[in-house]
Parts: sequence; C-alpha cells; structure tokens
Amino acid sequence: MSEIRWCCAPSLIEEALNRVLESESSALDEGRDGLRRAMRYALLGNGKRLRARLVIESAFVVGGENFSLQNALPAACALELVHAYSLVHDDLPAMDDADMRRGRSSCHKKFGQATAILAGDALLTLAFETVASSTRSHEIGEVVRLLAQAAGERGMVGGQATDIFWSQSHIETASGAALLQMHALKTGALIRAAAEIGAVVGGGNATQIENLRDYGAHLGRAFQIADDVLDAIGDPNTTGKAASDSANGKITATNIFGLKSAQHMARESSHGALGCLSIFGTEADALRQLAHFVVEREK
Amino acid sequence: MSEIRWCCAPSLIEEALNRVLESESSALDEGRDGLRRAMRYALLGNGKRLRARLVIESAFVVGGENFSLQNALPAACALELVHAYSLVHDDLPAMDDADMRRGRSSCHKKFGQATAILAGDALLTLAFETVASSTRSHEIGEVVRLLAQAAGERGMVGGQATDIFWSQSHIETASGAALLQMHALKTGALIRAAAEIGAVVGGGNATQIENLRDYGAHLGRAFQIADDVLDAIGDPNTTGKAASDSANGKITATNIFGLKSAQHMARESSHGALGCLSIFGTEADALRQLAHFVVEREK
Repeated sequence: MSEIRWCCAPSLIEEALNRVLESESSALDEGRDGLRRAMRYALLGNGKRLRARLVIESAFVVGGENFSLQNALPAACALELVHAYSLVHDDLPAMDDADMRRGRSSCHKKFGQATAILAGDALLTLAFETVASSTRSHEIGEVVRLLAQAAGERGMVGGQATDIFWSQSHIETASGAALLQMHALKTGALIRAAAEIGAVVGGGNATQIENLRDYGAHLGRAFQIADDVLDAIGDPNTTGKAASDSANGKITATNIFGLKSAQHMARESSHGALGCLSIFGTEADALRQLAHFVVEREK
Repeated sequence: MSEIRWCCAPSLIEEALNRVLESESSALDEGRDGLRRAMRYALLGNGKRLRARLVIESAFVVGGENFSLQNALPAACALELVHAYSLVHDDLPAMDDADMRRGRSSCHKKFGQATAILAGDALLTLAFETVASSTRSHEIGEVVRLLAQAAGERGMVGGQATDIFWSQSHIETASGAALLQMHALKTGALIRAAAEIGAVVGGGNATQIENLRDYGAHLGRAFQIADDVLDAIGDPNTTGKAASDSANGKITATNIFGLKSAQHMARESSHGALGCLSIFGTEADALRQLAHFVVEREK
C-alpha cells in the first residue's frame, strides 16, 4: 500500500499505537511483564494498518477543512487493537493452530497459550478504553456501539465460530452464499465498521456515513476474496503464512467458486466500493486507490 | 445472600441478562448456534450476581428518590458479562484447567475449547455494547472507561497473568504483599468498579462515588481472602469446585498467611468496607449486610 497517497504518514499511526500501549501499567511486576510484552508483540508487528487507515481516511473525506487527525486517531487505534486481538486468538491451537503470523512466530508460539489468551483479552479491552478515554464525548457511545457490534457475536466472533464449525468436518454443508456470509462477519464487519466509524468521528452527515459504510462492506468482501486467491496462488515467502487455508481444510472462495470466478468477484466488489465513493471528490482518491490495491496486492 | 434485603428482586437481574442475550442474532446459522448456546450457558448459571447487585445497590444508595433501576441495569449486566467471560477463559486448559464451575461442567468441557474462547470474547464485547446501547449518553464514556480499566491489563487480566506466572513454578518468589496486589487486580478491581460504576449511573456526587469505590475495594479484598479460606476448609460439595486452588499449586491467603491470620484479615477488610458506608443512612443497609455476608458465607 506504499504507493497510495494517504492523508497521514504511516509513522503517525505506529506512534499512536505505541502511546496507547504506554498508557498501560509500568509497574516492575514479573507476572504482568510477559503479558505486556505479548501485547506489544501482537500489536506492533508489520501490519498493513488497513483498518486504522480506513478510519483516518474516512474522517478526512467527510471532514474537509475541519478534519482533525487527533479526533480520528483513538478510534483508528481501537480498530487495530481489535484486529490484533482477533489474530492472536484465531492462531491458538484450539482454533486455526497457526505457528506463523506476518512472517514470524505467532503470539502463543512465542509467549505460551495462557499469555496469548490474556494478551488478546487485554488488547480487546484496551480498544474500548482507548475510545472512551480519547474520543470526543458525544461520539463515544456511537463508536463503542459500532465497534462492539462489528467485533462480537453478530460480527467477527460469529464469523470465526462459523469458520471453525465448518472446518471441523462440516465443510460439505457450506454453500457459496454461506461462505460470503461468513466472510461478511469474520473480516467484513470490522472493515465496514472502520469506514463507518471514521465517517462518524469525522463529523459526516447521514448520507456520507452510509456511503462510507457501504464502501467498507464492498472493500471488505474484495479484500477477503482476494486473500483467498492469494492463499491459493501466492508465494508463502511473500504472504508470510506457513500453510494455505485451503490445505488446512478451510472453505475458501477459490475452492467453492474456482479461481477465475473468485478473481472476478473480487474485482466486482472493488468496483462496487468505487461506486460508493461517487458522491466525493478528489479527497477520496486514497480510498479509491485502496479499492484497486486490495485486488492487485501480492501479500 | 438470600437473607439480604436487596432493593430489587433477584429475578429482575436474570430477566435483564436474558434480554441482553436476546439482542444477539437469531439467524438459523449452525456455525453461530454453538457460540450462542455457550454464551447462554456461561452467563445464565447459578451465579451469585454479586457484581450486578453492587451496581444496583450503589445506584440506589446515592439515587434517593431519583433512583431508577432501568438506568442501573445495563451497567449491572455489563459487570456480569465481564465476570462470566473471565470465568470461561480462566477455566481453559492453558490457564487454570478447571473441569467444573458452579457445580457443573466448565464451558470448554461442554462446548470445546474453540467455542469457549470465542464465547468469552463475545461476552466481553457484549458488555461494552450493552453499556453503549442502554446507558444514559452522558455517562457512557465514564462507565466504559471504568469497566475497561478494571477488566484489562491494569486490572483483572493483569491479575490473572500474575496468578498464572506464579503457578508456573515461580511460587517461591510470591510474598504476602504480592498476593494482596494480585488479589486487588484479579478480583478486587472488578468488584471495586461495580460499586463505583453504580455510584456513577446513580448520579452520585464525588464524595459518594469515592466512598462507594473504597467500599468496593475493601469488599473485594474481604471476598477474595474469604474465598481462599473457604477453599482451604470448605466442603467441595458446597463450594462446587472439584479441587482446591491450594492443591493446584496456587498461592492463596491461607498458605501465605496461615488460616487464622487470613480469617482475621478478611474480617478487618469487612470492617473497612463498613467504615466507608458511614456517610450513608439506612439506604445502605443491604451493602452493610453484604459486607458481613462475604466473610460468613459457606460457598
């Protein structure tokens, strides 16, 4: 995503995430030291920061001259905290049992399962604390509500439960529609919420919020299908994953629809995302570039 | 706690918790069906509802004629959701490895580890959604902040990490002061937050909020030490636990301080809790009875 012209420098997001973690305790307490190191490890890897970017760019698009990075950063950090926690828990042996993540050991391989479970719990909790502590007071309720709905049983956690259910020998019951529904929950809900929350903290009107939410929904679908395509054809040295989801018995867009159809669906979703941006001018160019990028990326 | 004269009937808390779960999806989706059943199982057992009680009674104490059960119930439910999630994750094989909880199978024994991890995650997330959806808007930020601080790395999760650290062969480094600090985080933080949050949603002034927070801190300490005493001398058929924490190599108040000293400390903390209520009249009698109860209970 390095060629996209973002409205804020990548380093500002990393600095903000660092500051969020520094708000945690600094007591010289061996018991919590491992927990804090695991939280840092899980949050401050080489992530793409897609969700933080979406919050900030959406706020920028609707904010115009009133855009304030400081208003958008806490929610942007909260989205990354929720995403980081979900990766830690998804990688656990009882779930996807992944030894590698982003080209290095997964959190539980490095810190043990107990610490990884707790680090995930603490990152999720810190997401809500960050919103409550730093967002403008009249927006806290809406941001917490949108974030919790996207992350919980009706969103990401529900999608992960469905994915696990199918991978535990129920794969033959999965249909194409069911796969798209699972994607919409597991990865789509949080990406859609990122765009919507950005529009809220940027002070967008109802039409702008709705268009950016729909943009996020299309983008999330394009992103996940493209991920399955990469998983099927990508180089493990580039993607940073040790084994493909397909080889792990997961249902994916490529093994349900076939490679060509999946690639076509990803591009269609990308076009759908672009359509939602038609009410905006050049201020939305980074979001347009992002919609192209998600179906053209190599990792 | 049945002999305490609470300001609201026990059934109202159970009904409110049921309503919170009903807000979750009802889609006929096999993948999420197990998740929802695990959430219900973990939340709607035969819990004492101590934390919900504290929220409601604290709101009642400061509210006077303006006391509104409807204003206090969402936060009361949120505290029980956080408590229920913490029990599910604490019982996991990688943590305390407990097969039994409240006299029946622990969540992962009944639903499997993956579903139990996800059910815990979803209950924690639902706690924040419940506050954001139903608390009065000007109080959401403060309630979310207090709840997240009490539940996260500086509170409950930090305490559990410390407990796990010591139980993994570092027990010889644990001191009495360190044990009390671990208790203050692992169980004390959430009990203190319950009393403080109740005072906030009840519309208490700064002095009332401070006194109820301190009451909660003393009560939490009394509760945890009394729990260790029960663990050492109680009947497993009454406490509902299969094996004592002490037998599992955990540090407890009785194996650090001895049984007599631990019993004395629990009573002192109970007296400390009563002292914090001196600014209130008979409206705080249920909280006074509770401070007696926690050191006299048999389970």
